Amino acid sequence: MADQSKHAVNVAMRGDGYYSTVTKGAKDVIDSAIPLIIDAISRLPDRAPALPFTFSDMGCADGGTSLDLVRQAIGTARARWPERPISVVYTDQPRNDFNSLFRIVHGLTPLPSYLDQAEDVYVLASATSFYRRILPAATLDLGFSATAMHWLSRKPCDISDHIHAVGASGAELAAFAEQGRRDWETILLQRASELAPGGRLVLVNFVKDEAGRYLGNTGGINMFDTFNELWRRFAAEGVIGTEEYVRMTLPQYYKTVDEFTRPLTDTGSAVYRAGLRLEQSETRIVPCPFAAEFRRHGDAARFAREYIPTLRSWTESTFLGALSPDRPAEERQGIIDRYYRAYEDLVRENPANHGMDCVHIYMTIAKADA
Amino acid sequence: MADQSKHAVNVAMRGDGYYSTVTKGAKDVIDSAIPLIIDAISRLPDRAPALPFTFSDMGCADGGTSLDLVRQAIGTARARWPERPISVVYTDQPRNDFNSLFRIVHGLTPLPSYLDQAEDVYVLASATSFYRRILPAATLDLGFSATAMHWLSRKPCDISDHIHAVGASGAELAAFAEQGRRDWETILLQRASELAPGGRLVLVNFVKDEAGRYLGNTGGINMFDTFNELWRRFAAEGVIGTEEYVRMTLPQYYKTVDEFTRPLTDTGSAVYRAGLRLEQSETRIVPCPFAAEFRRHGDAARFAREYIPTLRSWTESTFLGALSPDRPAEERQGIIDRYYRAYEDLVRENPANHGMDCVHIYMTIAKADA
Repeated sequence: MADQSKHAVNVAMRGDGYYSTVTKGAKDVIDSAIPLIIDAISRLPDRAPALPFTFSDMGCADGGTSLDLVRQAIGTARARWPERPISVVYTDQPRNDFNSLFRIVHGLTPLPSYLDQAEDVYVLASATSFYRRILPAATLDLGFSATAMHWLSRKPCDISDHIHAVGASGAELAAFAEQGRRDWETILLQRASELAPGGRLVLVNFVKDEAGRYLGNTGGINMFDTFNELWRRFAAEGVIGTEEYVRMTLPQYYKTVDEFTRPLTDTGSAVYRAGLRLEQSETRIVPCPFAAEFRRHGDAARFAREYIPTLRSWTESTFLGALSPDRPAEERQGIIDRYYRAYEDLVRENPANHGMDCVHIYMTIAKADA
Repeated sequence: MADQSKHAVNVAMRGDGYYSTVTKGAKDVIDSAIPLIIDAISRLPDRAPALPFTFSDMGCADGGTSLDLVRQAIGTARARWPERPISVVYTDQPRNDFNSLFRIVHGLTPLPSYLDQAEDVYVLASATSFYRRILPAATLDLGFSATAMHWLSRKPCDISDHIHAVGASGAELAAFAEQGRRDWETILLQRASELAPGGRLVLVNFVKDEAGRYLGNTGGINMFDTFNELWRRFAAEGVIGTEEYVRMTLPQYYKTVDEFTRPLTDTGSAVYRAGLRLEQSETRIVPCPFAAEFRRHGDAARFAREYIPTLRSWTESTFLGALSPDRPAEERQGIIDRYYRAYEDLVRENPANHGMDCVHIYMTIAKADA
């Protein structure tokens, strides 16, 4: 995933405390799934002692924010099955920074790795998308993923009056919901094939919760509406053209709790028939670490300066791609720089109620025993 | 491995034919192992139809030069076991360029990949050194490695009057031979543990052959002696100090045929007792593609210009590391630039008999059936 907040090492290398704030949100979300991981391992069936215990982290980015979770998973599995080898399979798209991943996990960065504390543990990486089969059938014991599966496999259409499906309506919203439904079904069916009988998934994903809250929309200013208003202002002022305004559509969809759980509870669904069952589900909010810091230090300029790069890390490539290819590359980059400066100005001048609280659904899913 | 000639994509991207010459030597060596791979697969025992056929390429660099070999391995295994999933595990050290590896194998570069032609094939990567266990016990069906295992796990001592063990003598030669022996034993014992009963290794490595020939020493000018004479000249001229001359010692050892085969035929050795048996062994010479091109075009300046970067790709970091850390980084780089220019001048002015023919041993090794 291109989200800087999941790429721990780039910021860890700065070594000045910036790291802990930038990755704190992502790591808090992951760390809070550790009890679910431990619980899931306790529910797994025994397998032959020579068979590796296979764990996957899907959408791992550089693996830095999940080091502690993986360490706990290894410790728990080893305690239960002292004889079984343990395979850890990190997965992300082919353009992910796997070089950083391997350097982090093999202890070549300042981040403390788990690898030299553990015997008979095998770390592997895959660049196969979670929309495809990553592992051979029935070889996965426990699959984990955090904050990755909101990225759709394709953009079903542009959204004519917003930059994100959270602001879509009518046929456009329906197209995104349908794409989200199909993609989720594909993800689950591929995992159903990979999982051993009785295997588990612990999946942590952005959700639209029962109160209608979602990432950056938890009672304060709606982050996605701010993105949209600024982009629309650029169109009104002639900085960008109408087509460029419309083309800026993030290929993401935040499913509701019902959309997440239905394929796992509807006995007629393909996913249910493939053996996947919902074992546990809850939604949680993890507060924006930048807004929390701001409440402590009260410096609006600092808040704006530190907060915007996180928003930029996972939106910039889509904004850039929305601009006309007829513009020279430098001109495109200039517009995008100006755009994030405008967002930063807005926050600095009026910092209250900005922030990007995370709203996640935490699900444990079981593959039926043969 | 840091050898540029094994890093196909860096040069493939230039797209001007340079690629084919630079990688031709490495790819010729690998391609000539394809019949051994096909033969090894035909000798493997059957395993349960649901068990993946697991293949590893150890010391894969960016995987570009072994694409055709892996394609043939997949095709052969699939023809024999249509039902078995296939796992391909690429391995190299943590500082290898795994990003290029995944982009090549997933078809994001101009090199044609095998991946979209094959169903039920799983590509994984590992950054675990071949001096350790890369895979869980008894899970590897066929391990392959080309031109990687001459790199020792450590440098046993400096060589006082040469830059490579091929020019060592006395106690220094003995120390390198002993390190080579131990490292080879470690590599084989780790593989003995990974291999399934009846599994095979096809290992292609630099060798000192029965006639005393080795890389860059096949009857013409001895490449390693040239390296050494130029470096000694730098010392004599005061460009470098005596300690810097001595410290330049490549952590490599080219074993003899006997040193390669003895642990596999000596019934008292740890490797033999671990179940590894020599099935086939032969040495082969693959001619230097740059010298071959020179015989065709006759342009000495072009030969020198094209040939030296290959030598540089696998020696530069060791030369740089030999220079005193008291020198500023720029000064160190300047000396090294001057060094390779001196080598280039030498070849341009007197091109005859320069070249880096490859001398390899090709071995097939079997793990005894349970």
